[in-house]
Amino acid sequence: MKKVTVIKIGGNIIDNPAELEQFLTDFSKIEGYKVLVHGGGKSATKMAQSIGLVPQMIDGRRITDAPMLDVVVMIYAGQINKHIVAQLQAKDNNAIGFSGADGNLIQSTKRNHPTIDYGFVGDVKQVNTKLLATLLEARVVPVFCAITHDKNGQLLNTNADTIASELSIALSEVFDVTLTYCFEKQGVLQDSEDDSSVITEINEALYQKLKEEKVIHSGMIPKLDNCFNSLSRGVQKIKIGHHKMLQNSDIPHTTITL
Amino acid sequence: MKKVTVIKIGGNIIDNPAELEQFLTDFSKIEGYKVLVHGGGKSATKMAQSIGLVPQMIDGRRITDAPMLDVVVMIYAGQINKHIVAQLQAKDNNAIGFSGADGNLIQSTKRNHPTIDYGFVGDVKQVNTKLLATLLEARVVPVFCAITHDKNGQLLNTNADTIASELSIALSEVFDVTLTYCFEKQGVLQDSEDDSSVITEINEALYQKLKEEKVIHSGMIPKLDNCFNSLSRGVQKIKIGHHKMLQNSDIPHTTITL
Repeated sequence: MKKVTVIKIGGNIIDNPAELEQFLTDFSKIEGYKVLVHGGGKSATKMAQSIGLVPQMIDGRRITDAPMLDVVVMIYAGQINKHIVAQLQAKDNNAIGFSGADGNLIQSTKRNHPTIDYGFVGDVKQVNTKLLATLLEARVVPVFCAITHDKNGQLLNTNADTIASELSIALSEVFDVTLTYCFEKQGVLQDSEDDSSVITEINEALYQKLKEEKVIHSGMIPKLDNCFNSLSRGVQKIKIGHHKMLQNSDIPHTTITL
Repeated sequence: MKKVTVIKIGGNIIDNPAELEQFLTDFSKIEGYKVLVHGGGKSATKMAQSIGLVPQMIDGRRITDAPMLDVVVMIYAGQINKHIVAQLQAKDNNAIGFSGADGNLIQSTKRNHPTIDYGFVGDVKQVNTKLLATLLEARVVPVFCAITHDKNGQLLNTNADTIASELSIALSEVFDVTLTYCFEKQGVLQDSEDDSSVITEINEALYQKLKEEKVIHSGMIPKLDNCFNSLSRGVQKIKIGHHKMLQNSDIPHTTITL
């Protein structure tokens, strides 16, 4: 089975031009099939403020109303995505930028919550694996922003981590998939204050133990639950760590397997 | 030789949601291979104003400085392009939206004018015909915005009419291409005040005659020169008219051939 590397980057890289440039240089050198998924960073919030939008919050959750959807589509699918694509092209990677609407690559369903109206937020329903595989085989490097659609003409805002995991699960039907989440820390830490305390390998048994011992707690629990869900649905391996690990595999990071 | 229909739409359609919806319905019913190229309309200017940008003009020409480039990338490649793609997907056309950076589909050169610095404006250098043909054969409907890149990481603003003609010329290597420019009038008019005075067919000899008689003058001359240039470089046929002609071929329009 051919291998695919799926990498997700977030705001800590996107908001810092020097980091983004370094990341894209490292990413461009990865051999074989690969997919990049990027989040949004702060520029959507900045743009929303500069045109006078007030963030809509319900129960502490950000709501994507119609004007905010326009902003995230502009910034994620326009500014950030095309900037990354142009940079990768300059590094001789044949990148193409996609939203989920393009090629119906990621179809989602508008979230229907019993008490909170999240607005134009979509939960992933299906991935067009066949087209994605065709693109990879044509040596295209797909670059996904966190915008999907409902196939009825509505664009929807979707969590970038979820897009990375759903694409990885779908690609697992055809490829051996390694999913890498790049974030600001070196991995899952034994001590959240100490960046050198990286737990380099976690499997399901260790995860249960670390949860019981309260070493893993709060925000890391849904993140890791999501990882084990992806692994159980076919993803071969998940890595979590700082993007520096792409240049130098000796840099500690966390590898998660079943 | 297989046929391809390339259609270019401008601001008069994009700025009017009902017209755009009708156009996309008609476009979605066109059989065979097809490509859509869209201009920008007024929303880039509105967005620029709302974030406080002052249009930069030199000798009456609009200049694309760096902040304005950000705006056109957001609006053209983000908002307008993804909206059109989602609408076409809802009409069961497998649309994918592209800038010229995506797949290196349209590489351009930053305009180098002896006296005017146009800023980030690109003149088309080459089209990735091979990838474009592969996409068409995979039944993808490419939707191009008027953004290109220089392959060195720089996005560039490019005239949408030029993109439509350069794509058509490049596709003529492999396909029989009909290029259609949709605009607010029914075609090239004998009397510019009378929309029923459409000249239904123009060839090069008639064009020379109409120019001498001053029936065709001012802004139509560079437009038609550009059409004859495209025809001499391989495009089979060019149509100019109102988008209503897509639903009903009895609606008068101008057909241009060599």
